[in-house]
Amino acid sequence: MRQTIQSLVDELKSHLHEYQITTNETILEHHSKDESYHAWNAPDLVVFPESAEDVSHIIKIADAHQIAVTPFGLGSSLEGHAIPYNKGISIDFSAMNKVIEVRENDFLVKVQPGVTRSQLDKELKKYGLFFSVDPGADATLGGMAATNASGTTSVKYGVMRDQVQDLEVVMADGEIIRTGNLARKSVSGYDLTSLIVGSEGTIGCITELTLQLYGIPEHITAGRAAFPTVDHAVNAVVAILQAGVPIARVELVDEASVRQVNRFSETDYEEKATLFLEFHGNEPGLQHDVLFTKEIVADYQCEDIQFEKDNASRNKLWDARHNLAYAYIHGNPERKLMVTDVCVPITELGGAIKHAREKINELNLVSGILGHVGDGNYHALLMINTSDPEEVQKAEHFNKEIVTYALSCGGTCTGEHGVGLGKMKYQEREHGNALTVMKAIKSALDPKGIMNPNKLVDN
Amino acid sequence: MRQTIQSLVDELKSHLHEYQITTNETILEHHSKDESYHAWNAPDLVVFPESAEDVSHIIKIADAHQIAVTPFGLGSSLEGHAIPYNKGISIDFSAMNKVIEVRENDFLVKVQPGVTRSQLDKELKKYGLFFSVDPGADATLGGMAATNASGTTSVKYGVMRDQVQDLEVVMADGEIIRTGNLARKSVSGYDLTSLIVGSEGTIGCITELTLQLYGIPEHITAGRAAFPTVDHAVNAVVAILQAGVPIARVELVDEASVRQVNRFSETDYEEKATLFLEFHGNEPGLQHDVLFTKEIVADYQCEDIQFEKDNASRNKLWDARHNLAYAYIHGNPERKLMVTDVCVPITELGGAIKHAREKINELNLVSGILGHVGDGNYHALLMINTSDPEEVQKAEHFNKEIVTYALSCGGTCTGEHGVGLGKMKYQEREHGNALTVMKAIKSALDPKGIMNPNKLVDN
Repeated sequence: MRQTIQSLVDELKSHLHEYQITTNETILEHHSKDESYHAWNAPDLVVFPESAEDVSHIIKIADAHQIAVTPFGLGSSLEGHAIPYNKGISIDFSAMNKVIEVRENDFLVKVQPGVTRSQLDKELKKYGLFFSVDPGADATLGGMAATNASGTTSVKYGVMRDQVQDLEVVMADGEIIRTGNLARKSVSGYDLTSLIVGSEGTIGCITELTLQLYGIPEHITAGRAAFPTVDHAVNAVVAILQAGVPIARVELVDEASVRQVNRFSETDYEEKATLFLEFHGNEPGLQHDVLFTKEIVADYQCEDIQFEKDNASRNKLWDARHNLAYAYIHGNPERKLMVTDVCVPITELGGAIKHAREKINELNLVSGILGHVGDGNYHALLMINTSDPEEVQKAEHFNKEIVTYALSCGGTCTGEHGVGLGKMKYQEREHGNALTVMKAIKSALDPKGIMNPNKLVDN
Repeated sequence: MRQTIQSLVDELKSHLHEYQITTNETILEHHSKDESYHAWNAPDLVVFPESAEDVSHIIKIADAHQIAVTPFGLGSSLEGHAIPYNKGISIDFSAMNKVIEVRENDFLVKVQPGVTRSQLDKELKKYGLFFSVDPGADATLGGMAATNASGTTSVKYGVMRDQVQDLEVVMADGEIIRTGNLARKSVSGYDLTSLIVGSEGTIGCITELTLQLYGIPEHITAGRAAFPTVDHAVNAVVAILQAGVPIARVELVDEASVRQVNRFSETDYEEKATLFLEFHGNEPGLQHDVLFTKEIVADYQCEDIQFEKDNASRNKLWDARHNLAYAYIHGNPERKLMVTDVCVPITELGGAIKHAREKINELNLVSGILGHVGDGNYHALLMINTSDPEEVQKAEHFNKEIVTYALSCGGTCTGEHGVGLGKMKYQEREHGNALTVMKAIKSALDPKGIMNPNKLVDN
């Protein structure tokens, strides 16, 4: 195998610089894992392309020798997407990290896939524009598109797929294609953009993205509303949505999780089931929305509603929310994080969370619940001792139980973290014979099965 | 052939009732055309399924004998989608016209594909909900999904694809699949929903749709703003969008088209380049938006801005806009309508429309220009004498010229009317080698090429 790897390196060098290819053990290890609980596995080598042509060259060689190719952004996946279980080549996009063009008046930005969310945010501020998808982690935009990331703002602005206008993609045969164009609407041809977004690197590697932007809202108001129970909080959200209040974020944090927040972020939020809320709009419209929301939450026994007075406390609120996973990890250093990710119709959310909490207690697991309740998507953050097989089994059992519950009420096994490795076992159950169609597409576009194999669908 | 058709009818009868199958000449003729200028062609027979199982049965027979299948909604296509050029079976969905379930609190509705937009609107009113996509024509929802319809409201609410939550589809082998679920977000598997939406019946037949709904806005205000030139109007729209005003509709109607409106709809709108505008929201927010918009349009030499005082005048305004195509047809009884449909980045729209108007004058064509300017999508409504080959050629030449212009500035040959028959000739130019990928998908999912052949892609 060593010989094979060396000859592979030599072949790659026909187009790439030596510094773009490595078999360094530390770097291989870095590309063997992500932020999930899934087992690590190192690639044979890591390459650092600097252009679509580099990626095309790499994939043509991989295609010729039928070698697995696994794209790597920043390794912030929670479902093992970037772990190269078939070894082969890990393509690290960190050297393709340029913001290519801001088309300010078209509300578009063209970026390379290795650009991170925070890097883009910084670049856009000078234009009075922002990019709406915020999954919490400072992921790369290529990774966010590959996994169709979302997060706290999707209730108003939509998910990653809604923001991707055009992609440059290197396909499994090394061909470079464009999936879209720069017009806001198009019905020309099949929607390859939506197919590639969320395909988790199993069809092609994204080498350039054109993304939609929004003007920074005239006004933003954020606040916290504490409720006697999770159920009251969830029902209040359903009522807010029904009233047509165009809420920009609405996050549920359960009592256990507020406690973690207070410990980790040095806040003194009331330790009750809480909604973190945010409104975007013009000032008079927003005041009206806030007043209306206050009336609604009062009907659901809201015990306290506080709006942040300034930007600093607003940022603190969202930092605390985003750091919640880290708060759990920090508070349980001997354990690993397993995050569930089902999404259900909004009216089913109260029941689903109640069921999950009952199971957590029944199985005596360490877990908080939080959720993007405006979308019906919630997470149980399980802190598990991965060296205890019984505990791992309990956690897997719990995950299966809540997936079964979600599917039985019209939901999905994964709202935003993706299939990757962890949710493959639920694909047949969720999709039935539509899975055959997905496999036919995978086989047609990646006949040799080299693109991120053993993820999402098997072909 | 008559023998073959008779044996086909007999085979269909093994599952369908006799009244569901017809070879009646008048009915065949009705299914030989749509609202486009494309040549008519009658199917061999028309079937009227009443369930997904019926459709599955029909397609299995078509598959066995390699007979073309063309879905038919209401025939309101503008690009020949429903015309069965390979003859075979026209599947008319008019008997599948039930609103199956309104999930009021989940903002979802489940419908059969033959339900029309106006039928759905009527049904939803009692829930205080509305369906956002309004292409003007009272099309079927199945047809709107198959062609990814949009129209005047997409600047705020998005296109058809954005509203489709789940589909039941009969594939080319007769298998019935579901493409989605009832949760607002899902990253489970490939996005088959987005692939089927806009695939124009070339992959499968839609037999059920679950669609997203919105609460009827607290307040709606509509108005008209007249400008000295089209260019001033377009630039005003760019400025409104840049200011982040969440406008719900913004339609450009050029001077020639306002004249047609006044004649046909008995209005007395000022005959100048005009924007028809609409705002949705709460009252204080909306007042703020309207004031802000008035300030912006003043900067672009708006000569008159009028807001409608009541629902009746607002409805009249939008009826006038929607009836514009009919106004042209009515005003030119000896001619047929050819509508162009390019879409460009918003900043390119002024130049694109100016170019189109110059070409219209140069070629001495009869045409008005109107457009969904918030999306960069405009239409030239050409009234052509299809019995005059020279005029047809001039119109085709004009269409090609503006497509070339649109593609050269990052746009698309079709923003909302679809590829159908009319835009196939531009697919290779627009998509380059991405067309190979589209063809690979078509071949994988419809290997015998029976699903609406000779449309969108050839395989």
